Amino acid sequence: MTTEHHFAHKHILGLDLLTAADIDHILLTAESFKEISSRPIKKVPVLRGKTVVSLFFEPSTRTKLSFDIAAKRMSADTFNISASTSSATKGETLADTAKNIEAMMPDIIIMRHQSSGAPHYLAQRIQTPVINAGDGTHEHPSQGLLDLMTVKEHKGKINGLKVAIIGDISHSRVAHSDIIGFSKMGAKVFICGPATLMPKKIEQLGAKVCSSLSEAVDKADVVMPLRIQKERQKDPLIPSFREYASFFRINRRVLEAAKPDAIIMHPGPINRGVELATDVADGPRSVILNQVTNGVAIRMALMYLVLGGE
Amino acid sequence: MTTEHHFAHKHILGLDLLTAADIDHILLTAESFKEISSRPIKKVPVLRGKTVVSLFFEPSTRTKLSFDIAAKRMSADTFNISASTSSATKGETLADTAKNIEAMMPDIIIMRHQSSGAPHYLAQRIQTPVINAGDGTHEHPSQGLLDLMTVKEHKGKINGLKVAIIGDISHSRVAHSDIIGFSKMGAKVFICGPATLMPKKIEQLGAKVCSSLSEAVDKADVVMPLRIQKERQKDPLIPSFREYASFFRINRRVLEAAKPDAIIMHPGPINRGVELATDVADGPRSVILNQVTNGVAIRMALMYLVLGGE
Amino acid sequence: MTTEHHFAHKHILGLDLLTAADIDHILLTAESFKEISSRPIKKVPVLRGKTVVSLFFEPSTRTKLSFDIAAKRMSADTFNISASTSSATKGETLADTAKNIEAMMPDIIIMRHQSSGAPHYLAQRIQTPVINAGDGTHEHPSQGLLDLMTVKEHKGKINGLKVAIIGDISHSRVAHSDIIGFSKMGAKVFICGPATLMPKKIEQLGAKVCSSLSEAVDKADVVMPLRIQKERQKDPLIPSFREYASFFRINRRVLEAAKPDAIIMHPGPINRGVELATDVADGPRSVILNQVTNGVAIRMALMYLVLGGE
Repeated sequence: MTTEHHFAHKHILGLDLLTAADIDHILLTAESFKEISSRPIKKVPVLRGKTVVSLFFEPSTRTKLSFDIAAKRMSADTFNISASTSSATKGETLADTAKNIEAMMPDIIIMRHQSSGAPHYLAQRIQTPVINAGDGTHEHPSQGLLDLMTVKEHKGKINGLKVAIIGDISHSRVAHSDIIGFSKMGAKVFICGPATLMPKKIEQLGAKVCSSLSEAVDKADVVMPLRIQKERQKDPLIPSFREYASFFRINRRVLEAAKPDAIIMHPGPINRGVELATDVADGPRSVILNQVTNGVAIRMALMYLVLGGE
Repeated sequence: MTTEHHFAHKHILGLDLLTAADIDHILLTAESFKEISSRPIKKVPVLRGKTVVSLFFEPSTRTKLSFDIAAKRMSADTFNISASTSSATKGETLADTAKNIEAMMPDIIIMRHQSSGAPHYLAQRIQTPVINAGDGTHEHPSQGLLDLMTVKEHKGKINGLKVAIIGDISHSRVAHSDIIGFSKMGAKVFICGPATLMPKKIEQLGAKVCSSLSEAVDKADVVMPLRIQKERQKDPLIPSFREYASFFRINRRVLEAAKPDAIIMHPGPINRGVELATDVADGPRSVILNQVTNGVAIRMALMYLVLGGE
Repeated sequence: MTTEHHFAHKHILGLDLLTAADIDHILLTAESFKEISSRPIKKVPVLRGKTVVSLFFEPSTRTKLSFDIAAKRMSADTFNISASTSSATKGETLADTAKNIEAMMPDIIIMRHQSSGAPHYLAQRIQTPVINAGDGTHEHPSQGLLDLMTVKEHKGKINGLKVAIIGDISHSRVAHSDIIGFSKMGAKVFICGPATLMPKKIEQLGAKVCSSLSEAVDKADVVMPLRIQKERQKDPLIPSFREYASFFRINRRVLEAAKPDAIIMHPGPINRGVELATDVADGPRSVILNQVTNGVAIRMALMYLVLGGE
């Protein structure tokens, strides 16, 4: 690696536990891994003979696939355990499930859980490195990091930028990781959304809450509408998709207030026409698919680094 | 490869889009790959470092397993996404799901979908080679090709043979691929089944519709009863399995009309005693398991060829 | 391998079909494989290019993961078929499902089935080696073998030891394999549990039925409470978990009757506080996680040996 920074983290639990220097080191490592996925033979032997277990208590397609592809491109062996087939349904405790997996000598456990803090709980009880692939409404650090990587790639820097994040901040672990990460790297994060979907005390993380969409988007370098997540709202917190869209949808008219070279990001999957207009999602400013490509590189870097980056 | 034919297809969507020369080239390639599965070490490095993603929106055991085994015997890395766990359940469009997968730099997408034409729709929107593993009632090209390979293997040729396909033609994508493929390769296809399960205009594909089972089977070289697919019939189109069997079951008595060396094929899974008598399924004329063995070779050939056959 | 014993078994169906010399040979082979899982690069090429298919008709997390990890650490390619996605749901017979898989040239089929004897039924109908990963209430041979390995590892021997197995013997295939295995290797097995959960004629397998927990545990070298398996009891055979625990839970007081160096085993997953007190499960005598570790080594040995141990 081209940096002298010593990366001392055994687990990746959240951006709140990483320093700006750590984040910088992860981004540099991911940038150096990115070209592997463009080679005719997408395979390097750095994790050969390593055992990577994903333990997913919530359904996931793209995050699981991204970690899985990242692991195999580094020659690791991967194993997937999902909640529906897991012993959790037989009444086993989370710690017992994890300790049983650990007894089979894995090298990394990738974990997604519906409860905020579940990966931290495990990390205190097992020796195996744990990478948080999303815990409740708390954090989704690999997504936050791939967002940072994508902004850095398109803007050449993160420091000093204005990032607007729009929508359901309360239920979005992506928003939390992004607010922490962009703030640590020197960007200013402006957030906006329905009052029912704004968490209390969110400004303590470094975000500025805006009372209008135009204030949030004004002169922004990055505009990121969040997915309206029906599956995370036990009670409906917005009256309807149609009304949400009329107030908060990012379309060309809204973007006129942003900088002319502003980029559009989205954590996916998109509800087209709800939080994001189709022509913007598919337009020249959209870097949504670049985010996905960078996700593989970030996850390669994280697995490489927690194993000591040998 | 022993043939000079230039195989120019990036996607494998259906036999309707392949020429007789293309099919011939695929069969020759598959024949050369077949012995790999009989080696003590069933592994060649031709697709090392390649990423093969199966995207299955309908359940499948054997087709998915067959593609997966074929890919790994060529040293590819394989990843499976099934509809129940996919973001499709989160309201994402099919094109967005596919573009997100594509952003992770796969080399091939194997796709099964309940809608006819879904793989064609995707092939127009993404750059990654798409192999159709069954789309609605339209086509199942790898099954059609393995049927051609099996007939050629047992009869030494396809041209000039009589092939009888019996049963639910309307709902069978296998029947459609077979009718097109056998006709292109010079065989005559005779079909027979309940009038409610005969598609209109099927003779345009080259098949002859027979009014009686004995006419279809008479002097046939190949007899292929189709599976009665309960899962594909929204309303019951046959009065009962028992009545279907009394009219259309292939048993030893029916086969007396076929050529003495006629072979019995079936796309599986068999409803024993319904469309096919057990003693015939297990008898000396049955090549049903050879079809399954050839399926792995055909799928190796298709993946090899869409990647340029380097 | 360090032993001259000729291992002649093509299938691993149950400990009832293995001799003491066979078991000894398996344990020695597993002991030699165990350190592979502690290497930085956990991978040996002994099964490179081999195809291992798991065919699981009952849900499983740890057994399936253990076989899968074992296979990949020996460089085999692994494929998982579970009942919910299998053609079994399309009305295919078990033998047809297996023959179809066999036609794709696998080297080993790992099978779990809810019916006792299902793997034996298949082993008579296919040529591929079958390893029983649990059949109904009959046997779970790899679990029995890993229990033997764990006892041998901690006690230096099996012959002459007293092993107490407590709980639902009737529904436990683990108990059956353990009773047979420990008896064959010269240990004495004492069993105890609710009268409704004691199988008739169990003493014919070599176990001694005790009328009280204290009799079973008295001077025992090994104490193994079984999981109360709600999912296997069609009608409730115990009045409540609380009453079961008050009579049969293994806690520190109960263990005072055992030998001072007695070890605690459990097949997992544990119902903490029901059949086993939490402080005992996590205490210094517990070797429960060692069992899990040894499971990978036993499964490596079984796959290696049925393929001829080349």
